[in-house]
Amino acid sequence: MRLLFCCTDTNPEPWLAGIRQALPQATVELWESGAAPADLAVVWAPPQVFFDEQPGLRAVFNIGAGVDALLARRIAPSTLIVRLDDAGMAVQMAEYVCHAVIRHFREFDVYEAETKAGRWAFRKPRRREEFVVGVLGLGVLGTRVAQALRGFEFPVQGWSRGPKLIDGITTLDGAEGLHAMLAQCRVLVNLLPLTDDTRDILNRDTLSRLPPGAYLINVARGAHLVDEDLLALLDSGRLAGATLDVFRKEPLPDEHAFWRHPRITLTPHTSARTMRDESIAQIATKITALHRGEPIVGVVNRLRGY
Amino acid sequence: MRLLFCCTDTNPEPWLAGIRQALPQATVELWESGAAPADLAVVWAPPQVFFDEQPGLRAVFNIGAGVDALLARRIAPSTLIVRLDDAGMAVQMAEYVCHAVIRHFREFDVYEAETKAGRWAFRKPRRREEFVVGVLGLGVLGTRVAQALRGFEFPVQGWSRGPKLIDGITTLDGAEGLHAMLAQCRVLVNLLPLTDDTRDILNRDTLSRLPPGAYLINVARGAHLVDEDLLALLDSGRLAGATLDVFRKEPLPDEHAFWRHPRITLTPHTSARTMRDESIAQIATKITALHRGEPIVGVVNRLRGY
Repeated sequence: MRLLFCCTDTNPEPWLAGIRQALPQATVELWESGAAPADLAVVWAPPQVFFDEQPGLRAVFNIGAGVDALLARRIAPSTLIVRLDDAGMAVQMAEYVCHAVIRHFREFDVYEAETKAGRWAFRKPRRREEFVVGVLGLGVLGTRVAQALRGFEFPVQGWSRGPKLIDGITTLDGAEGLHAMLAQCRVLVNLLPLTDDTRDILNRDTLSRLPPGAYLINVARGAHLVDEDLLALLDSGRLAGATLDVFRKEPLPDEHAFWRHPRITLTPHTSARTMRDESIAQIATKITALHRGEPIVGVVNRLRGY
Repeated sequence: MRLLFCCTDTNPEPWLAGIRQALPQATVELWESGAAPADLAVVWAPPQVFFDEQPGLRAVFNIGAGVDALLARRIAPSTLIVRLDDAGMAVQMAEYVCHAVIRHFREFDVYEAETKAGRWAFRKPRRREEFVVGVLGLGVLGTRVAQALRGFEFPVQGWSRGPKLIDGITTLDGAEGLHAMLAQCRVLVNLLPLTDDTRDILNRDTLSRLPPGAYLINVARGAHLVDEDLLALLDSGRLAGATLDVFRKEPLPDEHAFWRHPRITLTPHTSARTMRDESIAQIATKITALHRGEPIVGVVNRLRGY
């Protein structure tokens, strides 16, 4: 078994050492152009030449949950594309989103500004039972986020392309379900995969369906959001604010209006980082299962896009 | 049945209306000096003259979880003292503490300062499996907080006076248990009742037992913390920071050093507000149970102090 590692923006040494340890029977090498044909690969944003030179790959493992960048490549139809499920990302995502939702709901940002100015002042508490939080996307990450929010007794609604059932969460699907959910949400959390169907889904039309004063949290992909539509709705006072972790171009360009907007909190795509040890363990387990002819989860449906 | 309402710093009208609706069989009145003898009372920080004039009270219901202020009064031995359990406070406390722990663990405060300065910069993630969070006090609020933190996969330890068992939490008790727990905690959360045994418990000795760089969250009472000991440990760099919601004197006096300390986040005693509707429902249920001769929870042990 021969495995290539081809990950942009990643220090390869600890990954190679970890994969060699987890799969001692495999030959594990850092990819270079002209490398001998391999069966398997671990990748992040690989160049097109990688796939052009390796048409015989049986499976590629993406070290992230989103495969939108990978699906922009031409990949042999016989190559299985596998994404990470969870691998330590779901708890980070739950943490990131709960922190942002609680901060907004409890107005801890306002309290921080008040106390920094030396003022001891109460704010009237918001009513939790009316504070609907909506989650777009109910995959491994979206489900974990919805359940974590439910733990704080918010009414939680979740939307996905097809119908899903999640204990304690009101689930909706399809275009009608999306509109019904948007009309309820005081906070909207985006955790959709980026596909042709979901690109630009957070736009003037959809965001205007939220109740006045609603809040947006985008932790999926920058291309889900039409930046200028969000800015217009924030500046008109229609939306209260946004927490954004992902952007159309990363790093976010210096001149972008998001940097200086008083009602946008931004982080540098850090909501859920790939955890090396968990990822290697998951990939090794899946490779072993594939070799035994057993089914694995996380195989990407190329037509669906995730 | 005659019930008096005697709550300082509280608008009585909605409480009186709510109690009358919940207990239609009772005569419910706002206390004034000279009021006729009553069986029951709903109180918050009542003056001594209230108890001096009402020695025949069967039970007083405190509209808060902490009864330290109430126990400073002389109260007839035959009067049952009852505190609120939960009544909407536990979820607020879980929210407050999880927000503060996540903000510190994920360094969202640092990210906020960086992005406000226009910098896109990653920080090396902290290791969750080493990030022990310790909770002092395992009553209704402490238990809920410990479980909420466990939901984010932190190793959680909990300490209480006597032994307790909580699923998923390492529990310790007694003086030896306290020292063992302090030595582990990257974050220490205080949710103890204020009693003669716990006053000043957060002092130079105990706080110095925490690992270097530990973080303190005090959401119980200001008198648990020796203010100058915390300031010294922060200024020497021994502790990383603190989130404080309670203070020896409230509102926190203008001249207090906590107001301007760069590594203290403070809020004006807002971690868990009394929720009127939930509190009235709970008190009404307990009164009905007492009338039927059934046992109720939340009866204060005066010797123990909570």
